[in-house]
Amino acid sequence: MRDCLPEQLQPRLEVIEKMCRVFQLYGFQPLETPAMERLEILTGKYGDEGDKLIYRVMKRGEELKRSLGDIADSCSPLGDDINSLTKFVSKMAPDLGLRYDLTVSLARVVAQHGNKLPKPFKRYQIAPVWRADRPQRGRYREFIQCDVDIAGTDSMVADAEIITLFIDVFNDLKLPAFEVLVNHRGLLKALSTACGNLPEKSNDFCTALDKMDKIGMDGVVDEMSKRNLQTEKLSQLWELTQQRCYINQSEELNALFNSFSEFIDLDESNELFLKQMEELFRLLNGLSIPRDIVMFDPSLARGLDYYTGPVFEIFCRDRSIGSLAGGGRYDELIGMFSKQSIPAVGASLGLDRIVDILLEQGIIETKKTTVDVMVIDIDKSNDSIEYCGMILKELKKAGISCELNYDRDRQVGKQIKAADKRKISFIIFAGEGETATGIVRKRHFSKKFEPIDLYVNIKRLIDGDERKNITLSDCIRWIKESR
Amino acid sequence: MRDCLPEQLQPRLEVIEKMCRVFQLYGFQPLETPAMERLEILTGKYGDEGDKLIYRVMKRGEELKRSLGDIADSCSPLGDDINSLTKFVSKMAPDLGLRYDLTVSLARVVAQHGNKLPKPFKRYQIAPVWRADRPQRGRYREFIQCDVDIAGTDSMVADAEIITLFIDVFNDLKLPAFEVLVNHRGLLKALSTACGNLPEKSNDFCTALDKMDKIGMDGVVDEMSKRNLQTEKLSQLWELTQQRCYINQSEELNALFNSFSEFIDLDESNELFLKQMEELFRLLNGLSIPRDIVMFDPSLARGLDYYTGPVFEIFCRDRSIGSLAGGGRYDELIGMFSKQSIPAVGASLGLDRIVDILLEQGIIETKKTTVDVMVIDIDKSNDSIEYCGMILKELKKAGISCELNYDRDRQVGKQIKAADKRKISFIIFAGEGETATGIVRKRHFSKKFEPIDLYVNIKRLIDGDERKNITLSDCIRWIKESR
Repeated sequence: MRDCLPEQLQPRLEVIEKMCRVFQLYGFQPLETPAMERLEILTGKYGDEGDKLIYRVMKRGEELKRSLGDIADSCSPLGDDINSLTKFVSKMAPDLGLRYDLTVSLARVVAQHGNKLPKPFKRYQIAPVWRADRPQRGRYREFIQCDVDIAGTDSMVADAEIITLFIDVFNDLKLPAFEVLVNHRGLLKALSTACGNLPEKSNDFCTALDKMDKIGMDGVVDEMSKRNLQTEKLSQLWELTQQRCYINQSEELNALFNSFSEFIDLDESNELFLKQMEELFRLLNGLSIPRDIVMFDPSLARGLDYYTGPVFEIFCRDRSIGSLAGGGRYDELIGMFSKQSIPAVGASLGLDRIVDILLEQGIIETKKTTVDVMVIDIDKSNDSIEYCGMILKELKKAGISCELNYDRDRQVGKQIKAADKRKISFIIFAGEGETATGIVRKRHFSKKFEPIDLYVNIKRLIDGDERKNITLSDCIRWIKESR
Repeated sequence: MRDCLPEQLQPRLEVIEKMCRVFQLYGFQPLETPAMERLEILTGKYGDEGDKLIYRVMKRGEELKRSLGDIADSCSPLGDDINSLTKFVSKMAPDLGLRYDLTVSLARVVAQHGNKLPKPFKRYQIAPVWRADRPQRGRYREFIQCDVDIAGTDSMVADAEIITLFIDVFNDLKLPAFEVLVNHRGLLKALSTACGNLPEKSNDFCTALDKMDKIGMDGVVDEMSKRNLQTEKLSQLWELTQQRCYINQSEELNALFNSFSEFIDLDESNELFLKQMEELFRLLNGLSIPRDIVMFDPSLARGLDYYTGPVFEIFCRDRSIGSLAGGGRYDELIGMFSKQSIPAVGASLGLDRIVDILLEQGIIETKKTTVDVMVIDIDKSNDSIEYCGMILKELKKAGISCELNYDRDRQVGKQIKAADKRKISFIIFAGEGETATGIVRKRHFSKKFEPIDLYVNIKRLIDGDERKNITLSDCIRWIKESR
């Protein structure tokens, strides 16, 4: 976990603001959920490995005592060894967990507040999630997820909308060339079955297939053997899954669909999966998507277990970094928290990676974000504080950030040096006395004053340029011109 | 803890946006810190009661086992009773805690990153904090704090800036009549000593005095006796602390300072405290503060132990609700994390209360925030998807949120009903076919089209008003006029 200091935070906030604007234009509404969920909400959704990475929060006071007591009574772990103690404590001491992603919390919200929500419910959420993972370069135990989901419709229009939305966001951010890979989790399951595996093995199959890019054909054969998966048809499978094509290349796409139909068993559900893909691609082709950007990639798997339909990932074309965003349809997750099964589709965007790319490419910049102007009160009389107060007010009204000098009793020269170090852009001298830049005159003014009545000296710190006895209006103009 | 659904979240985001604008005009920069801190950072800062309210996060895997093992070896709690087990587990199992406020995290950041930060460091942070408190009406275990702090200066200009900033924020939010109460923690300590209490009793003294409003003079006498505080001079103290006055009433203010000087011991530090207050009030009076808004209230205490200088709280004038914001100077907190002692002042704003007041008074509104327009694709041909895609693009370009109809195969009448239920404002019919509102014509268009070439039918759902075969440009104008 890490602090995000102002210089790093500014570009991140800039990206978030742009994203939110696009989310809202697509009709998505913001949602906030608690950082902690009951532990049983979180466990069993991310696979065994994921479960281990959930941060667990301990019960408090009497409740902790009662739980440990229960255990002590029923299982007498107290006389037992340290392994049992650890197991008992791990099981009985925590009741809450920090969220591992935003999708499970959304599913809980839809199940819990369903009747209060519009149908379908379109929400975005930008919030930290926590994983007790071994930290790696660029990956932290606390990181921000940006999620967009539509719950309550099985229409492929929703899947197309999510993909189009992400393309719009990426274009809006001026992200360098990227492409969208799309596949269908159902078709992957069909491939697994066609290879001779039992249905319950399909997640293992996806996990192994997912590594093809990294470990190659031989690696995948090893991996599959280890997991007791059939490997006979692998070379045929390899050939099929290497046939990527852009979805606007209609001939290639048809050929690919045909190969699929030949390889898998064309039962009712597989027919539906193929139809869904055809419909999704038809929609995407229609919705003014730039050419050659969306690709059907039959080898794309996606890590999480809960996907049931189309899945997608977005990559930089040069693959200089891992996926920038990804998502898919998960029609069964909400049903785990509710009597009703509610179809849903959503996607998640990796904010840190995107900000890194935009910074690297100079598309956005880290900015010094200190104050624009420090007003130095020369006289230090009651009158002159009031004079400074009015100047500060006018500057703020003009959208210029400013402050009164803190070190009132320090030499003016030293105050200027300190301001320069803080990267303050301008110093305004106000009052009626002698300063480093000359005499500051002050006009009399009434309570109903106009900025034109306020006279000041001003110094630009970057080049030492200065203007003497100018009106505040001229001053403001100069500051704005200098930006 | 609770979910914040879109309808409740919108006004909160609106308030946050306004606040941030003012924070930035005052030259404050955003900071983000992790939700979890090491437990030793958090404990010992909030008093015993506070410590109990910190959420504790368990160690993971081997580390947990090792810690429980250490305990088992050295203290053999395994053979012991459940109280000892609970104590051991509470001590050894957690290593992290969820932050209890934002001030301690700021102090840690300044101590840790000091050399990378501008001096003074002015930051704001708007983020959730967690307290394992008994939930009450309007108070939750997870709530948002909005903090503004200046670390690295002991100048009273900083204290005045924070107070002025909060007044500006409240004015900007159009909050109903409010007032700011100011006191000095050092003066309270001087009062405690003057009553005959030992210096280490001054926090107890403050806590008891803090309740005067609620439990009256007799209650305070009881409370002080219970805490072994001297009560002889209480009636004199009562008289003194009841003398509130606005800081622009110079005669009353002088009288009050005189009473103070008579009651307390005028040693060096107490002299300084009085001078600080005089300087602070002089600054506040000068900085264009509206009259009759800041009050010197010698009974104001503030709960937290870490304050050392001026403290303040902001209340609605009618006292219909508890304090809306509060803060003060804490010159010794950062030194607890660093070899260096660094003076600091800051304040915190209660977002939920403020949003509640603004909503109650109708100053802000909860808004339906669904999409503005649903575009219904009549033809469902490839051509017509493309036509819809262009319409959607133009609507978004005009800042109008929109979506393509999800239920493509449902009767149009039913789709309209469902859209109405979702509070969608307009339906646009696109394509080339018969709809509930008549025939939709479509012009031929090239890829380089102008919105003027797109013809649609449109229906306003709130009153059923409709326009037929109008251009998209006219359409957009009508939608914007209807807002």
